[in-house]
Amino acid sequence: MAKRNEEFVTHIASRSYDFPQWYTDVILKTDMVDYSIVKGCMVIKPYGYGVWELIQDEMDRRFKETGHVNAYFPLLIPESLLKKEAEHVEGFAPEVAWVTHGGDEELTERLCIRPTSETIICSMYSKWIQSYRDLPLLINQWANVVRWEKNTRPFLRTSEFLWQEGHTAHATFEEAEAETQRMLEVYREFAQNVLAIPVICGRKSEKEKFAGAQATYTIEAMMQDGKALQMGTSHNLSDHFAKAYDIKYLSKDGKLEHCFTTSWGTSTRMIGGLIMVHGDDRGLVLPPRVAPIQLVILPIAMHKAGVIEKADEIYAQLKSAGIRVKVDDSDQTAGWKFNQWEMKGVPVRLEVGPKDIENKQVVLVRRDTHEKYIVPMETLTDTVKKLLDDIHESLYNRALAFREAKTVDATTFEELKNGVNGGFVRAMWCGDRECEDAIKEKTGATTRCMPFEQKHLSDVCVHCGKPAKAMTYFAKSY
Amino acid sequence: MAKRNEEFVTHIASRSYDFPQWYTDVILKTDMVDYSIVKGCMVIKPYGYGVWELIQDEMDRRFKETGHVNAYFPLLIPESLLKKEAEHVEGFAPEVAWVTHGGDEELTERLCIRPTSETIICSMYSKWIQSYRDLPLLINQWANVVRWEKNTRPFLRTSEFLWQEGHTAHATFEEAEAETQRMLEVYREFAQNVLAIPVICGRKSEKEKFAGAQATYTIEAMMQDGKALQMGTSHNLSDHFAKAYDIKYLSKDGKLEHCFTTSWGTSTRMIGGLIMVHGDDRGLVLPPRVAPIQLVILPIAMHKAGVIEKADEIYAQLKSAGIRVKVDDSDQTAGWKFNQWEMKGVPVRLEVGPKDIENKQVVLVRRDTHEKYIVPMETLTDTVKKLLDDIHESLYNRALAFREAKTVDATTFEELKNGVNGGFVRAMWCGDRECEDAIKEKTGATTRCMPFEQKHLSDVCVHCGKPAKAMTYFAKSY
Repeated sequence: MAKRNEEFVTHIASRSYDFPQWYTDVILKTDMVDYSIVKGCMVIKPYGYGVWELIQDEMDRRFKETGHVNAYFPLLIPESLLKKEAEHVEGFAPEVAWVTHGGDEELTERLCIRPTSETIICSMYSKWIQSYRDLPLLINQWANVVRWEKNTRPFLRTSEFLWQEGHTAHATFEEAEAETQRMLEVYREFAQNVLAIPVICGRKSEKEKFAGAQATYTIEAMMQDGKALQMGTSHNLSDHFAKAYDIKYLSKDGKLEHCFTTSWGTSTRMIGGLIMVHGDDRGLVLPPRVAPIQLVILPIAMHKAGVIEKADEIYAQLKSAGIRVKVDDSDQTAGWKFNQWEMKGVPVRLEVGPKDIENKQVVLVRRDTHEKYIVPMETLTDTVKKLLDDIHESLYNRALAFREAKTVDATTFEELKNGVNGGFVRAMWCGDRECEDAIKEKTGATTRCMPFEQKHLSDVCVHCGKPAKAMTYFAKSY
Repeated sequence: MAKRNEEFVTHIASRSYDFPQWYTDVILKTDMVDYSIVKGCMVIKPYGYGVWELIQDEMDRRFKETGHVNAYFPLLIPESLLKKEAEHVEGFAPEVAWVTHGGDEELTERLCIRPTSETIICSMYSKWIQSYRDLPLLINQWANVVRWEKNTRPFLRTSEFLWQEGHTAHATFEEAEAETQRMLEVYREFAQNVLAIPVICGRKSEKEKFAGAQATYTIEAMMQDGKALQMGTSHNLSDHFAKAYDIKYLSKDGKLEHCFTTSWGTSTRMIGGLIMVHGDDRGLVLPPRVAPIQLVILPIAMHKAGVIEKADEIYAQLKSAGIRVKVDDSDQTAGWKFNQWEMKGVPVRLEVGPKDIENKQVVLVRRDTHEKYIVPMETLTDTVKKLLDDIHESLYNRALAFREAKTVDATTFEELKNGVNGGFVRAMWCGDRECEDAIKEKTGATTRCMPFEQKHLSDVCVHCGKPAKAMTYFAKSY
């Protein structure tokens, strides 16, 4: 234990000095991810993929509890199909990858790799939906998608990424709207209760909404550099796609009507989010509910009789209680192990040595606050469970306090301009595209959303002075 | 219940009359799958995807129990990378889809959509593996792959399919061989204990092995038309890929050595297999351990007081015992429901009506044998659990008996030729490629494998009369 402070992690840039470099150091050095030979594409390494698997488990359960089922649709979309919804193709065509050859043969029509699946899924819904009895149709897909990005960063923006996309069809606009909001709420609750990330819920501007949507709702989180990350979106597509792809149903009154559809998605980008919200200068700080290892057991003075056996006994006890646990009995020094598992963000470290065994106790150290607890063996399992919950709450509260401290209300453009350097700004806005573009050019900030929780700050737009439409969040973003 | 025989399913072709048509009817009419607008690509509908999710759960647990972790590698592979292993590129190049454009720009190097991931994964392993401490490296990936197929059939052969591919690296050939065999045994055990499918384990011929492998092992199953389906393969890649992709490690003795790698895969093709092994003229017969619905509750005389309530009570009771259960309280007739759920292959039907409630009992009907049981409410949960296990055993035994009845030992070419019409043939074979090609041309059958369980049938090859190398399975195949 003497080595603890000597071997402090020095190869990760400090957050305050260079946040982007800190992020890159953390994701590479903790084996979350690696760059690949394919430009803009990442490899999600086992430790990072372990986080994704836990995210998938938690989300998938929520989707099923709200009546959705999973299915799988083709990766490749014919160009003519993509083009049927005008706004949609305009939005996505510049960034799709095109398949032109199968083996040695040139294809008669080129196929794009799905950037999102509205077009292919709507073409199937048109076939599957005949009557009001087929509605609502509530399907989710876990899949990879490709968007040809120029500037990429692992998890945050890559040419290929993994995600889930929900696609639903309904009899009325109101039902589609209710679904859109319901799934945004699932995302919000998931971000809070699983990722320990507080998010702002609201509606995107016309400029920022999904290509082809009537309305896009979003959850937005603040990273530790004060920038915003869009963590998930939910779209009310009205009857736009139903009209373009001919999705009709026979109503109870015997009339042929167009459906109303929705789509909603979240991706591996959330992993980038949880790293940038919770991490510190020593590395990752993983929220316990998605930590592949929740507790690491470090046997101290391993060569002494009974130490390894006790570590294995504790492992078995905690594992059978459903805790994700690992024993590090490698031949590295204790100091190296402390730093290693701290860097990897394991929520709780457990130390057990000859003296602890004698006293029927162990030492627990929490990753987020570095607090130490001496815990009697007999209450260990309950204590660990409670501690994991405490760490979750504490991470959430810390992130919320951080966001609140870095959010200002602006009534002048100067205040807005200053505020978006390192934080969020709430200000009244006219809703006009030209005004939005001008604000972005002058400040580098975009509209993040018009939040559901509105405050009346003034009657006029913070930038152009025209009548204000809504209080809006502005921020620089990923 | 009177309608039972009147409304017998008539829209599925009989297996004996037209097996391919029976297969197509079953998969489409039970909502397992649908054709898409994209040639050769299928949509896996929720009912079919539900089977895949259960397969994934069961396999993934086995992979983790044998020390493997999951990761995710890029979909797109640069042409130059694909070309590094000569046999591999020769095998796969004719059937890959090529991406040539990103947005409006032509790529400087074209990218193929992965037909399998040895090349991209080996390029990463070359970076990740430095020392003997990094070995063995045991990674699995769940992913989609694309192989440009001319003749496609849902689940069995499609241009895109879902699969898992394990990729491991080891210090010695022997360790790689042990891993290859270990994973084949995982597949065999899974096929038997989850899919209720008996399989033959053996080694592929040089012609049939994986492009680039030293040895390919396979599990082969017999469909009800007597044809073989390859259900999974496990490859010992020796140091072929390690040499092509420069995967080296520093040994304990301080020497730089090439690794030995393996790969092993199974896919959504297994779903086609379980349909063709267990199905009957009424439709699907799903093995209980991958049935999305294991038991369907049909309330009889639903309008009578207490019937729906009792159905819901039974639902809650069975669900809490971990049984996948559904209540069909739709307004269809009882006869329609019987046929519907029979066609969908639900292993057990539970009927409960006013008389049953009075007598504190229910009626259970098993899908595989149509046997009926009157079961007291108080023993219901245990009875259902036991019944599901019985059905599993019974399906396995029936499939095994079928395979044994349709397998012959041939010592003359005439016997081989007759035997492969509707069954498997065991015969001695010389192992030569030319002989193998000639047998295929004359009989339509291929070598399936040289099984681990050998019998000495004669000293000479059944076809060419040269000295025999091994007893070999011959069959027509999917």
